[in-house]
Amino acid sequence: MREVAVIGVGMTRFGKYLDKSLKDLGRVACWDAMKNAGMNPLEIQAGYMGNAAGGALTSQTMVLAQVVFREVGVVGVPMMNIENACASGSTALFQAWRDIQAGFYDTAIVAGVEKLYASDTQKTMAALAGGGDAELEMSVGVNFPAHWALRATKRMELFGTTREHFAKVTIKNHKNGCYNPRSQYQKEFTMEDVLGSRMIATPMSQLECSPIGDGAAALILCEASKARKYTDKPIIIAGCGLSTGSYQETRDITFNDIEQRAAVKAYEAAGIGPGEVSFAEVHDCFTVAEMMRVEGIGLCQHGEYDFLLDKGEVEIDGRLPINPSGGLLAKGHPVAATGVAQICELFWQMRGEAGKRQIANTKIGLAHCSGGGIAGDGAVSVVSIAKKGF
Amino acid sequence: MREVAVIGVGMTRFGKYLDKSLKDLGRVACWDAMKNAGMNPLEIQAGYMGNAAGGALTSQTMVLAQVVFREVGVVGVPMMNIENACASGSTALFQAWRDIQAGFYDTAIVAGVEKLYASDTQKTMAALAGGGDAELEMSVGVNFPAHWALRATKRMELFGTTREHFAKVTIKNHKNGCYNPRSQYQKEFTMEDVLGSRMIATPMSQLECSPIGDGAAALILCEASKARKYTDKPIIIAGCGLSTGSYQETRDITFNDIEQRAAVKAYEAAGIGPGEVSFAEVHDCFTVAEMMRVEGIGLCQHGEYDFLLDKGEVEIDGRLPINPSGGLLAKGHPVAATGVAQICELFWQMRGEAGKRQIANTKIGLAHCSGGGIAGDGAVSVVSIAKKGF
Repeated sequence: MREVAVIGVGMTRFGKYLDKSLKDLGRVACWDAMKNAGMNPLEIQAGYMGNAAGGALTSQTMVLAQVVFREVGVVGVPMMNIENACASGSTALFQAWRDIQAGFYDTAIVAGVEKLYASDTQKTMAALAGGGDAELEMSVGVNFPAHWALRATKRMELFGTTREHFAKVTIKNHKNGCYNPRSQYQKEFTMEDVLGSRMIATPMSQLECSPIGDGAAALILCEASKARKYTDKPIIIAGCGLSTGSYQETRDITFNDIEQRAAVKAYEAAGIGPGEVSFAEVHDCFTVAEMMRVEGIGLCQHGEYDFLLDKGEVEIDGRLPINPSGGLLAKGHPVAATGVAQICELFWQMRGEAGKRQIANTKIGLAHCSGGGIAGDGAVSVVSIAKKGF
Repeated sequence: MREVAVIGVGMTRFGKYLDKSLKDLGRVACWDAMKNAGMNPLEIQAGYMGNAAGGALTSQTMVLAQVVFREVGVVGVPMMNIENACASGSTALFQAWRDIQAGFYDTAIVAGVEKLYASDTQKTMAALAGGGDAELEMSVGVNFPAHWALRATKRMELFGTTREHFAKVTIKNHKNGCYNPRSQYQKEFTMEDVLGSRMIATPMSQLECSPIGDGAAALILCEASKARKYTDKPIIIAGCGLSTGSYQETRDITFNDIEQRAAVKAYEAAGIGPGEVSFAEVHDCFTVAEMMRVEGIGLCQHGEYDFLLDKGEVEIDGRLPINPSGGLLAKGHPVAATGVAQICELFWQMRGEAGKRQIANTKIGLAHCSGGGIAGDGAVSVVSIAKKGF
C-alpha cells in the first residue's frame, strides 16, 4: 500500500457563528488548507466531507461536499458526504486515506464542517440525541451526559477516581486552550470553578461536558512520494483504524472495546506501538471520556489515567501530552469538524508550528475520535497515527 | 483489482409507512438480503448505509448504519453512513465495491433506507430542497421541478420533443410497475391521464414527477472468487463510476456532462461499451430526466430518445428496455433506497427472477443514479454496470 501525507491544513476558530452558514465556515477552512498546501484546486482529485447535524439543524440537508468544495474551485471530481456522528470527520479522513493508499487517487481534500447553534438549544439537543439509537435510547432518557455519568460513577467505585481527578482533565485542557488561538474557550478554570459548576448528570458538572459549537477544519492529502512538490514538512498518516461497537451484555462500562479495536488496527497498519506515541488528541467529550479513551487506546493501563493526571504527565510539558489543543472541552466540539481538527493539531505540533502550546517531543502523534452511543457502547471509533515525513 | 459479486438482495415494497421507522424498514431489507445470500451476519466484514433525509425528517439524525445493521446481527465491523442526495445508496455501493476491489474486505452489506413521509408535505419539500445549494438555489426558487421543467422546455425547442413524448415515459414506467410487486404504484395510466394531470412546472405534469415515498433496499457483496460458496448465480459489478458536476456557464441544459463522465468511468472499469448494454435502470425523477439520462450515459444519441419511445424500443419487450422495475416514476423514489433498489432489479432480471416483467436479453445491465442539483448541473452521478458471474 502507498503512504499518505498531510500537506496542508486549515481550520476556523471554533465558536458561535450565528451569521455564518456551513458553506461560509467550510469555505474558510478549505481555502486555508489549500493555501497552506500550496495546491491548486484543479489538482485535487477527490473530496470527502464530514458533517453530522446539517440535515437536522440547517437548510443544507444534503450534498455539503459539493456545495463547499465548489466554493474553493474543486468541481467534477468524485465526492461524498460521510457521517458517523462525532467521528464523521475522522471517518472522512479514514476513507480518503484508504482510497489514496489503494491508488484510486493521488490527492484529496477532507473537511469536517458543523453548525450546532440553532434557533434554540432543544433543537440542538434533539439532533444530538439522534447520534444514539433514537428509538431505544431517547425513549429511556439515556442521553450522552447520562451515558458518561454512569461510566464516571462506576469508575469512582472501581478505581477510587475522585471528582478532583475528573476536574483535572478540565483544568488541563482549558489551560491548553488558552494557548490555542482557534480554541472556542480561552480561559483558565480552577478546581473550585469545576467542582462548583452546575451539575449536569452526577458526577459530571457543566465544565466537564464539551460545549456546543460551530466550526470547520480541512486537510489536503497527497500520496507521499508526490508530496515533496508541495512541502518539505509533510506528516504521514501511518495508520488509521475504524471500528464499531460490539454487543457486550456483561461488559465493564468503564472500558469500551471499541477504542481498543480501532487502535489495534491503527497500530498494526502503522507498525507503531502505543509505547512509541509521543502525544495524542483524544475525544474528551466529557472528562471521564478522556480517561477512558487514553486507556482504551492503550496509552496507559485501565484505571491508570488518574495517576498520570496527578503526576502532571499529560500536561503539554509532561511525558505524554494529551489534548494539547485544548481538546473538545476547551477548543470546542462542532461534531464533524472535531476529528479533522485533531489532525490539524498533530500537523502543527509535528511541524513545530504550535506556538505557545508547542510540545517538545512530537515524533509520533495519535488522534482518537469516537461517535454515537448505541446501547452504551460507541457507534464508531477512529484512531489515526501520524509520523513525520521525509 | 478483484471482482465484486452481488450474491443476495432484499427490498421492501416502496410506499407510505407512517407506522414504520428507518430501523423497521432497514431491518426488513437487510434481513431479506442476508437470507437471499445465505450468509450469516457474522461473516459480513463491513457495512455501508445510504440515507439522505433522515437527519431532516426523522429522530434518527445520525449513525443509521450502526442502528440498522445491529438489528440484523452485524456489529463490531467498520461501518459508515454515506450521503450524496438521491445517489446516496449508489454512492454507498460505489464505496463498498471499491473497498472490496482493493482488498480491504471480502464481504459487505450495502443498504439504502429512507423515509420521506413526514408530518406535512412542506417539511419534506424543504428537506429535499436542501439537496441543491440551499443558499443559492432555494432563494431564487429553482427547485427540482423547476430545474427539470426548464430542461424540458429547452428540449422541446431544440428537438421538437412533444408533451406526448414525455408522457410516453410515464405510461411505459407505470405499465412496468404493474408487474412489480414492490412498486409503490401498480396502476396503468393513459395518455389522457398524463396530459390531463395537474401541472406542476410547465411542461411537467404531476404524473411526470416521481412521488414521495418510504422504503429500503439492501445488497450483500462478496469478492467474486468466494461467491460460489453462497450462490451459483451471482451478478458481478463489472464497473462503477462516480462523478460530480462541472461548471458549464455556456452549456446546453438539455445535456448534463455529469452522467456522461460517470458512465465513461464505469464503461472503462468494466471493459464494456454502451453498445453492449442489454437493459438499464435510470434515474427518471421526471420524465425528461429519463430521456437525458439515457442519452447522457450514451445508450442513444442526444435527442434520439423520443424516437426510441415512439418505436417501443425501450419497453420490456423492446431492444433496450429502460426501467423495467417501473423506475422512480412508478416504483417510487425513497431517495437513498433508489440506487440500491436499481441493483436489486438488475439482480432479479439477470437471474431470471423478475416474474411478469422479465426481460429476454439480460446479458449486461446498467444502473444510473444522480443526486442533487447544484446550479443546474447534478451534484453527483453514479453508473454501475453488471454482468453475469460464473
